[in-house]
Amino acid sequence: MNRPLSVAMIGYGFMGAAHSQGWRVAPRFFDLPFDPRMHVVVGRDADAVAAAADRWGWDESATDWRDVVTRDDIDLVDIVTPGDSHAEIAIAALDAGKHVLCEKPLANTVDEAEAMAAAAERAAARGVYAMLGHTYRRVPAVAFARELVQGGRIGRVTQVRASYLQDWLADPQTPYSWRLDKGLAGSGALGDIGAHIIDITQFVTGTPIEAVSGTLRTLTPERPMPGGGVGTVTVDDVALFTARFADGVLGQYEASRFAMGRKNGLRFEISGTDGAVAFDLEDLNVLHVHDARAPITEQGFTRVLVTEPQHPYVAAWWPAGHMLGYEHGFSHQVKDLLEDIAAGREPHPSFADGVHVQRVLAAVESSAARDSVWTTV
Amino acid sequence: MNRPLSVAMIGYGFMGAAHSQGWRVAPRFFDLPFDPRMHVVVGRDADAVAAAADRWGWDESATDWRDVVTRDDIDLVDIVTPGDSHAEIAIAALDAGKHVLCEKPLANTVDEAEAMAAAAERAAARGVYAMLGHTYRRVPAVAFARELVQGGRIGRVTQVRASYLQDWLADPQTPYSWRLDKGLAGSGALGDIGAHIIDITQFVTGTPIEAVSGTLRTLTPERPMPGGGVGTVTVDDVALFTARFADGVLGQYEASRFAMGRKNGLRFEISGTDGAVAFDLEDLNVLHVHDARAPITEQGFTRVLVTEPQHPYVAAWWPAGHMLGYEHGFSHQVKDLLEDIAAGREPHPSFADGVHVQRVLAAVESSAARDSVWTTV
Amino acid sequence: MNRPLSVAMIGYGFMGAAHSQGWRVAPRFFDLPFDPRMHVVVGRDADAVAAAADRWGWDESATDWRDVVTRDDIDLVDIVTPGDSHAEIAIAALDAGKHVLCEKPLANTVDEAEAMAAAAERAAARGVYAMLGHTYRRVPAVAFARELVQGGRIGRVTQVRASYLQDWLADPQTPYSWRLDKGLAGSGALGDIGAHIIDITQFVTGTPIEAVSGTLRTLTPERPMPGGGVGTVTVDDVALFTARFADGVLGQYEASRFAMGRKNGLRFEISGTDGAVAFDLEDLNVLHVHDARAPITEQGFTRVLVTEPQHPYVAAWWPAGHMLGYEHGFSHQVKDLLEDIAAGREPHPSFADGVHVQRVLAAVESSAARDSVWTTV
Amino acid sequence: MNRPLSVAMIGYGFMGAAHSQGWRVAPRFFDLPFDPRMHVVVGRDADAVAAAADRWGWDESATDWRDVVTRDDIDLVDIVTPGDSHAEIAIAALDAGKHVLCEKPLANTVDEAEAMAAAAERAAARGVYAMLGHTYRRVPAVAFARELVQGGRIGRVTQVRASYLQDWLADPQTPYSWRLDKGLAGSGALGDIGAHIIDITQFVTGTPIEAVSGTLRTLTPERPMPGGGVGTVTVDDVALFTARFADGVLGQYEASRFAMGRKNGLRFEISGTDGAVAFDLEDLNVLHVHDARAPITEQGFTRVLVTEPQHPYVAAWWPAGHMLGYEHGFSHQVKDLLEDIAAGREPHPSFADGVHVQRVLAAVESSAARDSVWTTV
Repeated sequence: MNRPLSVAMIGYGFMGAAHSQGWRVAPRFFDLPFDPRMHVVVGRDADAVAAAADRWGWDESATDWRDVVTRDDIDLVDIVTPGDSHAEIAIAALDAGKHVLCEKPLANTVDEAEAMAAAAERAAARGVYAMLGHTYRRVPAVAFARELVQGGRIGRVTQVRASYLQDWLADPQTPYSWRLDKGLAGSGALGDIGAHIIDITQFVTGTPIEAVSGTLRTLTPERPMPGGGVGTVTVDDVALFTARFADGVLGQYEASRFAMGRKNGLRFEISGTDGAVAFDLEDLNVLHVHDARAPITEQGFTRVLVTEPQHPYVAAWWPAGHMLGYEHGFSHQVKDLLEDIAAGREPHPSFADGVHVQRVLAAVESSAARDSVWTTV
Repeated sequence: MNRPLSVAMIGYGFMGAAHSQGWRVAPRFFDLPFDPRMHVVVGRDADAVAAAADRWGWDESATDWRDVVTRDDIDLVDIVTPGDSHAEIAIAALDAGKHVLCEKPLANTVDEAEAMAAAAERAAARGVYAMLGHTYRRVPAVAFARELVQGGRIGRVTQVRASYLQDWLADPQTPYSWRLDKGLAGSGALGDIGAHIIDITQFVTGTPIEAVSGTLRTLTPERPMPGGGVGTVTVDDVALFTARFADGVLGQYEASRFAMGRKNGLRFEISGTDGAVAFDLEDLNVLHVHDARAPITEQGFTRVLVTEPQHPYVAAWWPAGHMLGYEHGFSHQVKDLLEDIAAGREPHPSFADGVHVQRVLAAVESSAARDSVWTTV
Repeated sequence: MNRPLSVAMIGYGFMGAAHSQGWRVAPRFFDLPFDPRMHVVVGRDADAVAAAADRWGWDESATDWRDVVTRDDIDLVDIVTPGDSHAEIAIAALDAGKHVLCEKPLANTVDEAEAMAAAAERAAARGVYAMLGHTYRRVPAVAFARELVQGGRIGRVTQVRASYLQDWLADPQTPYSWRLDKGLAGSGALGDIGAHIIDITQFVTGTPIEAVSGTLRTLTPERPMPGGGVGTVTVDDVALFTARFADGVLGQYEASRFAMGRKNGLRFEISGTDGAVAFDLEDLNVLHVHDARAPITEQGFTRVLVTEPQHPYVAAWWPAGHMLGYEHGFSHQVKDLLEDIAAGREPHPSFADGVHVQRVLAAVESSAARDSVWTTV
Repeated sequence: MNRPLSVAMIGYGFMGAAHSQGWRVAPRFFDLPFDPRMHVVVGRDADAVAAAADRWGWDESATDWRDVVTRDDIDLVDIVTPGDSHAEIAIAALDAGKHVLCEKPLANTVDEAEAMAAAAERAAARGVYAMLGHTYRRVPAVAFARELVQGGRIGRVTQVRASYLQDWLADPQTPYSWRLDKGLAGSGALGDIGAHIIDITQFVTGTPIEAVSGTLRTLTPERPMPGGGVGTVTVDDVALFTARFADGVLGQYEASRFAMGRKNGLRFEISGTDGAVAFDLEDLNVLHVHDARAPITEQGFTRVLVTEPQHPYVAAWWPAGHMLGYEHGFSHQVKDLLEDIAAGREPHPSFADGVHVQRVLAAVESSAARDSVWTTV
């Protein structure tokens, strides 16, 4: 019989649905070291959060996160609020001895992120752990790419290219929203989706980015307000940057909300001296693998369906050839987090990893503001 | 507040995991007319079924399905046992006034299937409904294909081609198992996966098959027994057949367990006078659509990501571009079934639909036994 | 210095352009054992054939093929007329001691084809050779598929599937033409494009088809005449058949002129116990290769760009990654034919190969006329 | 009867084979305003150039280009020598009143390129024309992309992304060659293949690049010499840059010789407010077109086979669905050049276009040398 582990989720927007699905489903498919209990969901609006609790299957709802994160009957705090509140909640929870799962971005500023990482480090010394929620690391094809790359299957890495292409702003008539306000959203495409490709390429290669040269651009500076009038866009629509990894490898990155026809196109291709891997989140059960040691006449990119039981995470699910979807990463995240907590092992991505991503983002902004000169992270 | 609806699931193999996931998840994403309760799971081995109840979240377990299907506190019986027991359980449950969801195949013989359909018809007269579990109908891209085809988007249908390609028997050293014994499994590739492509193409076109010419083949007649010795394969490894639909359209079908490199390759392409649609279950979020009325220079197959809120079932899930997987069909099945029950409307596929598929399978077997002559269903 | 070899081409339609391109280009890229001279082109209409000679670069034109095929200064006769005249011309040319290249189909009837094969056999005894023009054998990816399959790379062949999908008749308003008249065209989709997939799968596997079960269908029996009125279509629009190869392997075939959206979709996939190969003429520089002996986690279809110098025919052309097109097969045909003549070796496909294809076609027609019963070739 | 036009080709390397094929084949498929005569091919080594003349079908060979470019019986000079000799030959030919076709790159330096453009301008005033040989403009799918983009089919262009990926240096043991010596080759990936994606994206969008921020990198600074010892690589292996077009649009570019598994991967994707187009030279008969004005449920990238007679250049070749290859662009180049000469119209790309590409390349180099700051072209 597993030990129970009682979870409070702070926030209940879109990501709340995804995290709830992770907590609900993971125990049905994985042998977890704990029995997670979906205990309390927290939000400001009492009626709305009660409805969310009912909809997503949380036992209780509450309106004051400060009370909840110190309750004795809570073991883990899962934060899915907007980024500007992450630091305060996470630090309070960690200091109260609660494990923390915090949805990305870690924070809206490097300062906040660093304070969070410091709190996570203090907590870890006491066996209390923090994980940042980059679930795309836990897509089987991505985890498998990491296995191949770090296992030497493509030789020495020589180049990285990554893009995250969406098109929800491609129509200039798409109305203004809070996500286009730098004060509220922190940044635009760069922080929202650029953060993903920074994290995922560092994860797959196992090497941090140490310098960048970047360009940001707001393609449509004014948009109609939903209620009439015109709103000024103060965040970037497109971020283009070149990165240098710690081992000298160069990477090229694009984050765009204007890539017409691309809905959720997180892609990377990593070239090495003995092969390459290529991935596209719009076809997430597949990894394309090139083996430069195969006979020359038989070389090419192999379309590997990452659905075999030998692939990461897959054995728990369905037979070979049965597709997984977006939300499976949230179950994998729960599994890995609980296993790490049980093993007394720091989960990844750590808050320190999140700080690094934040610093890369800040360096891109800084470079962009200084004529794209190379800027150390 | 929804009315509760208490479910008993008979059987707990692989399909039990998938059905449980449907019952668990559907109410979290869809506004259902009932609150389904995962009440009892039934199996012969008391310990094993108790473990399954615990693992998949059923309140109770039991060992005698006859007791369970007549319990007053059970509203719906979900049957996931092997096909040879479907008839007895389903008929008992329907006659006891319970709604029934029965995993495919409906039965192992046409006679059993007909008895089930008769029971379903009797039950429907009393407001008690039966549904057959062809969940692939409920993949959004498949449901969308049906919308397009039956909405006239590709004009008059002219040709159907479908295949279901797997490779788990492609290695002649793969050991013998019960699935290769006609007495236990009923049939081989034909009934197991051929049934899917018969159902799905009839569903998309809206037209029944009325005659077939078929060939069955056992490619590897003997296989090593797991415990040593040799087992004789008495089912087909490959089924190839041509079908004529009621409107005269011809279809070509292949069901194979020897299609090396294809894991779960259920594919169809339907041609019409004004366009075409093509689908592959190994890429299940996509429908390829050809529009013959577009300017000639811009024609081609469009790779439609069937993840927009306007697509069938999708609005309940994630934003555009976020992939769904295999088990989402089981939630869609629960949703449709409960809505149909609430509306007093016969669900599809009905048991009568299942009888028809069974008759097509029987006609293929009969044709194959008579030198592939055309055989009326 | 190469020996000269003087060519006469009989006919000057669409295929004349392709054959001329082969004769013109092959000597510029391959080291041939002869210097082919584009000497005479023959057609009934003196002005038109003179224009064709000028356009395509033949030294002379003539109107009477009987004169030309016996001229002393002609070494090889290349026949690109409609199929009903092949037998007479080819036999006359071979009997006159001229090598013959004859565009497919070999003939419109099995009887004619057999007479041609007999003439070819007589000629070969005198060192005079005949080749049938199935140029798709000489697409590098197809020739490479044959190397792999016959070299054992996919183990024992277990299944063949092939289709040739076009859509030029998919619109019921497409007007009537001579190709839809059985008297003139011999047959419809079956003979025109079905012949290609019969030949290519026998070529790749190295095994002949020995029996078939088939269905033919005219989907649009009446079409508008270009000049008004209605024409009755007397050939098949679609041919569907199942074939048994001499080694017992089953193949499934479709030839269709109604596959909306497919322009020149000659496809095959050959499954074996150790792998598979898949090809599509609409992407002709690519062969998809599956290796079932690779590590299970890395298996999948590899998209091999068949443009390396080690691939068949490719070294003569451009660097790796540079695409070849449709007409390159005609240069490869010239190269192989001249090399075979120089070596005193029978070219392939031989007229006997063509007779066999013709017999398969006839067996499909016969089966289709007898309720699709299996029919020996 | 066409006027004759006598051609001299200076140089006879790999590009000589491709240009010869263009001169040989174009008149057979297009109705040209001149009858091109393959008159003289020029090279330093008398025996080698005589062999080339024989192989590729030139009437004569010669060793001194200065003599040839002033011969009265020469109308057009086709330059396929290495880039460092282009300026001298082209200027001499133009000044002698000969039309000039000059293979890319225009020159190794901006100064030389400008002198060439000045000569071309002087010549044009006298009805003598110069064309630069970027044949990829004349791939039908590329020309069609231009038609769509400049015809407004994708709305206002918002973003450009382009890459040219090769892998022939990806293996660090690939030996040193002259192409890796800046003194001889001018530049590395940037000038060799980066020039193509600069030209092609300017061509498709119709807008020039006006500023860049770039990074160059030599990934393997030392390589084994073929004869033993070690050679120092003095050119870039990889060029990454961001570009600003004259209308403010941003583009991102990569040119790499280290993209393992990519052989000739020239790709671009151009996003607009109403659609997008995407192209890959490794699949050159295809253009992917996205139409954002289609019904939302049917949107996606359409795989257009650019082989219809209505597509640019295609009507001259084969029926729909028949693939063209690499060298067809050289025939299209001949056709366009001769038509422009006949019409007294400046061909494109002009030498001035080439100067602009050269300036972009120089600006990338300059930016890379100054920490990637934005540099005006």
